[in-house]
Amino acid sequence: MAKEAASKVYVPPGSHDEMYAFMSGGFSGQVSVYGIPSGRLFKVIPVFSQNPETGYGYSEETKAMLNTSYGFVPWDDAHHPEFSQTNGVPDGRWLFINGNNTPRIARIDLHDMETAEIMEIPNSAGNHGSPFTTMNSEYVVAATRFSVPVPQKDVPIASYKENFKGALSFVKVDPKSGHMNVAFQIMVPGFDYDLAHCGKGPSHGWAFFTCYNSEQAHTLLEINASKNDKDYIAAVNWKLAEKYIAEGKGKSMPANYYHNYVDEKTRVAKSEKVQSVKVLDPKECPGLIYYLPTPKSPHGVDVDPSGEYIVGGGKLATVLPVHSFSKMLKAIETNQVEGKIEGIPVLKYSATLAGEVKNPGLGPLHTEFDGKGYAYTSAFISSEIVKWKIGTWQVVDRIPTYYAIGHLSIPGGDSAKPWGKYALALNKVAKDRFLPTGPNQPQSAQLFDITGDKMKLLLDFPTIGEPHYAQMIPAEILTKHNQQIYALESNGNPNGIMMEDDAKVERKGNEVHIKMIATRSHFTPDCIEGIKVGDKVYFHVTNQEQDWDLPHGFAVQGMRNSELLIMPGETRTIVWEPKAPGVYPMYCTDFCSALHQEMQGYLRVSAAGSNVPIKYGTGK
Amino acid sequence: MAKEAASKVYVPPGSHDEMYAFMSGGFSGQVSVYGIPSGRLFKVIPVFSQNPETGYGYSEETKAMLNTSYGFVPWDDAHHPEFSQTNGVPDGRWLFINGNNTPRIARIDLHDMETAEIMEIPNSAGNHGSPFTTMNSEYVVAATRFSVPVPQKDVPIASYKENFKGALSFVKVDPKSGHMNVAFQIMVPGFDYDLAHCGKGPSHGWAFFTCYNSEQAHTLLEINASKNDKDYIAAVNWKLAEKYIAEGKGKSMPANYYHNYVDEKTRVAKSEKVQSVKVLDPKECPGLIYYLPTPKSPHGVDVDPSGEYIVGGGKLATVLPVHSFSKMLKAIETNQVEGKIEGIPVLKYSATLAGEVKNPGLGPLHTEFDGKGYAYTSAFISSEIVKWKIGTWQVVDRIPTYYAIGHLSIPGGDSAKPWGKYALALNKVAKDRFLPTGPNQPQSAQLFDITGDKMKLLLDFPTIGEPHYAQMIPAEILTKHNQQIYALESNGNPNGIMMEDDAKVERKGNEVHIKMIATRSHFTPDCIEGIKVGDKVYFHVTNQEQDWDLPHGFAVQGMRNSELLIMPGETRTIVWEPKAPGVYPMYCTDFCSALHQEMQGYLRVSAAGSNVPIKYGTGK
Repeated sequence: MAKEAASKVYVPPGSHDEMYAFMSGGFSGQVSVYGIPSGRLFKVIPVFSQNPETGYGYSEETKAMLNTSYGFVPWDDAHHPEFSQTNGVPDGRWLFINGNNTPRIARIDLHDMETAEIMEIPNSAGNHGSPFTTMNSEYVVAATRFSVPVPQKDVPIASYKENFKGALSFVKVDPKSGHMNVAFQIMVPGFDYDLAHCGKGPSHGWAFFTCYNSEQAHTLLEINASKNDKDYIAAVNWKLAEKYIAEGKGKSMPANYYHNYVDEKTRVAKSEKVQSVKVLDPKECPGLIYYLPTPKSPHGVDVDPSGEYIVGGGKLATVLPVHSFSKMLKAIETNQVEGKIEGIPVLKYSATLAGEVKNPGLGPLHTEFDGKGYAYTSAFISSEIVKWKIGTWQVVDRIPTYYAIGHLSIPGGDSAKPWGKYALALNKVAKDRFLPTGPNQPQSAQLFDITGDKMKLLLDFPTIGEPHYAQMIPAEILTKHNQQIYALESNGNPNGIMMEDDAKVERKGNEVHIKMIATRSHFTPDCIEGIKVGDKVYFHVTNQEQDWDLPHGFAVQGMRNSELLIMPGETRTIVWEPKAPGVYPMYCTDFCSALHQEMQGYLRVSAAGSNVPIKYGTGK
Repeated sequence: MAKEAASKVYVPPGSHDEMYAFMSGGFSGQVSVYGIPSGRLFKVIPVFSQNPETGYGYSEETKAMLNTSYGFVPWDDAHHPEFSQTNGVPDGRWLFINGNNTPRIARIDLHDMETAEIMEIPNSAGNHGSPFTTMNSEYVVAATRFSVPVPQKDVPIASYKENFKGALSFVKVDPKSGHMNVAFQIMVPGFDYDLAHCGKGPSHGWAFFTCYNSEQAHTLLEINASKNDKDYIAAVNWKLAEKYIAEGKGKSMPANYYHNYVDEKTRVAKSEKVQSVKVLDPKECPGLIYYLPTPKSPHGVDVDPSGEYIVGGGKLATVLPVHSFSKMLKAIETNQVEGKIEGIPVLKYSATLAGEVKNPGLGPLHTEFDGKGYAYTSAFISSEIVKWKIGTWQVVDRIPTYYAIGHLSIPGGDSAKPWGKYALALNKVAKDRFLPTGPNQPQSAQLFDITGDKMKLLLDFPTIGEPHYAQMIPAEILTKHNQQIYALESNGNPNGIMMEDDAKVERKGNEVHIKMIATRSHFTPDCIEGIKVGDKVYFHVTNQEQDWDLPHGFAVQGMRNSELLIMPGETRTIVWEPKAPGVYPMYCTDFCSALHQEMQGYLRVSAAGSNVPIKYGTGK
């Protein structure tokens, strides 16, 4: 048994993993890239949090990525990675991920696996139900987790029911560049919106959002938001929304939010402020949105590959309700409505229900699909994966997870064509599963083989931060367009240089700009004099290498800043403000060559007002 | 073959790894904890770099850890983890690690695997040859990588030979508390000092340091510091140094460096400034230090388990010289000296040489031992591990590494009693070994089985940052004293509270102090009013849980700060300075329970000068 599992997850040295897993870091704010089936961590992609290791959020080229309407935010809570799709199938172009704390969506370019763009979401507070994509990535959606006064204002917290609202946002994705913009928002009752998924096939054109706290409690939610037997799935007809917007029904609301992106030519991050957003009011837009009652405090809302079934994971529910999209359309047509909330019709539970999965485990959260007619639901409290058959709603297998599974993931498991084969449990508690590491144990993933009738546990592996959710994709979809270097000849950084002869040091008032080259195994220049206390020294370092996997690092002793980690062909800039006269070393921080240790230089700092002139050079 | 390797590295779910590997993060500035033989990453211990994931370097309790004489430094370059030792054997109490950029040594407490102390090293620039320990952790040593003016002053870089000096530091470790202090330094010629190891057995009382750049070049070192056929190993008699210090030969030199440590009672980090350091001048201390000529630009200096042999890894040398400690003593006794450098006698190469290992690979760097009479040397350029026999100096096996090995590591391999069994190659280049991740590929480790005559490759696994060096230790040495929680009743944080009834919100001028409890699944208080724009809001959050692996997280939307990750029984504090009126959510960021999503609250912010009073509570 162990031997069989070993042979299934062991990737012999020199061989490659079969799939990539992109895992959210949860409270790390980043995305981690793992190999499947080995569970090996290949890369942590800096997204929403500062990363001293690479200079992300410290270097001049990257700092703007973390600008928000709140100011510079060095951290976030990243929950749901989602691949861009073409015809409902992950296409390997981009990975979207939400910032749950400061409402944002990031887009990672899968060619170089770096964050290319971050879009803030206005009128939101906690961007949890995000960034789920439509079949051709027309939109990624974003549902506010917390309701807040919209627009923000100073009101008593006890005025929640009167003053607090939710927003469902539709973020348009440019099909060529991937650039995002907030196309429109729908203002909805002040519940807590949790997760989402977009329709596919027949339900393409619709998006589904869960909510809890339909009680509209503002305090002690563990009790006060757990009272109603049913909360809702909101079904939004976004094609109709587009029509309303085209007709001018969108009210332009003043807003103030940031759009940050890496300029393609310079590879320098820019921030732009956006000043307004178009908002639709359900009261004025009949047919735009319906509530589907769903037991109880639903978390996941998951659409099966056919697009017909919509599964609600009610974390306090005893059954797993499956809504039928076609029945929903019929219920709308025949007005099977049990009431209205702030203008939103509430459809009858029985009118949309396809079936209920009985005994889906305690605390069912999230469901994915294998493309062979089966669904897999995670159950947090009973800590298991429950496999059931679409159509019969019968549980056919269940397997424990260790411990406390949140989301689960199957390759392509939320798409129109799942690849299946593996299921990954994303567990919150490791406790005794690994060697102890003090009070702070890792969270973890467990890999299951789902090719047979019975699920089989293959591997436990710990993760970075919280592996809130993951998406997997066959390796060849990404490896075929992997980018190995940045071409030096197309380096568009205004401070980049291509040759050592172009290196220079220039003073502009109290700014000193050093344009330098890093190459095996020296910097040009490597001796610089004429820097003064009070100066702001900009090191613009270009890595002249044009071979894969040949970064150079750069740091000055005691710099009060991070390092730079500079990829081949790239220019990165870091600022140093020396505080005292002396001679300080700078050096390459990434073991680049046999003479890496010799890749060093000196910076002479004189007192403010001294007349030591700028002077630089190498021993050549 | 692959099946055999798979069975040797696969740790079945529910079973534990055999050993821990503590790996430096290199340019990440942190330490990573892996399981061996699985290669799974269990934890990243924040040491020298800010870590938004846990609030390290952002929270009020941890910020002081990163104070230095240069100011707050958010990053470093961590190279050499070293276990504390008792009788020359790793004892599992502490792990020391050097900060290479801003000269520091950190001490990690292996009970909770958190950084307990950081000591800055004065008169240094780049603390590379560090923190190697003596047989009973009497000292950890620190050799400056870069020579600089001592004390720092504004001089031309070209005056290097005249003005630049090196320092070898001996940092005393309190045998009970582990607290460090810089006992003394030895001022040495302005070379680049690289690595170190302390003697053992007969050579206990001595420490050995390599240096390169005996040419004293200050520019283009890859050429100018690679001219001499031999550089040196400095042999320091630290027991004699203690005598000289006792006799008052240590000159007290003004200095200004930081000693940061976690107060044991409060668990709050404190910074203390140290104002002087005792310095020994070799000219005035005969017998204190000798230079052993060693070909060519030596990196590693490695003492075999018996303490008799001292291996120099000359990265540009064609042979691997092994010095004999007993011959060295005799050479000193018989004055086999070929000259003096700044008062330091240079012993004759032939007088100290035990033997030379021929054909040790290209670019030999570092040697460890298996305790069975064999030594293993890493060769960077030829990218291999070379196994040779102590005494005969014959190479008996060699195996390629993929690619560009720097250090290697064997469990206990630099101690008096190696456990052997595995060798770990710490590789700088992964290139095509793993699925590609854009231009930025991971660095990696390779695990070898060294139990037989021939080394066998078992596993490739990628690493965090640069795995510059690692130390491994059998698991049971650490697991027996692993700490699972912090006891709530001994929480000494001045802002910690034990019970919800003690929660309170107090205004002190423009500071608002919120003492709150986090417990499954709510905060107390969870609704707070009366905060104003311009306030500095301190959230003092105590995690009331007393179960292992039950952290809570804490964040406010758009906080312009990191999150807090709070271990059971712990209090952590983070500051928020709200910028605009409104009502903002706060929430638990670590998926703690079935109703984690309900673990939230609201903060009402009013305009500066408003008269909304402080008010707080829960719905209970």
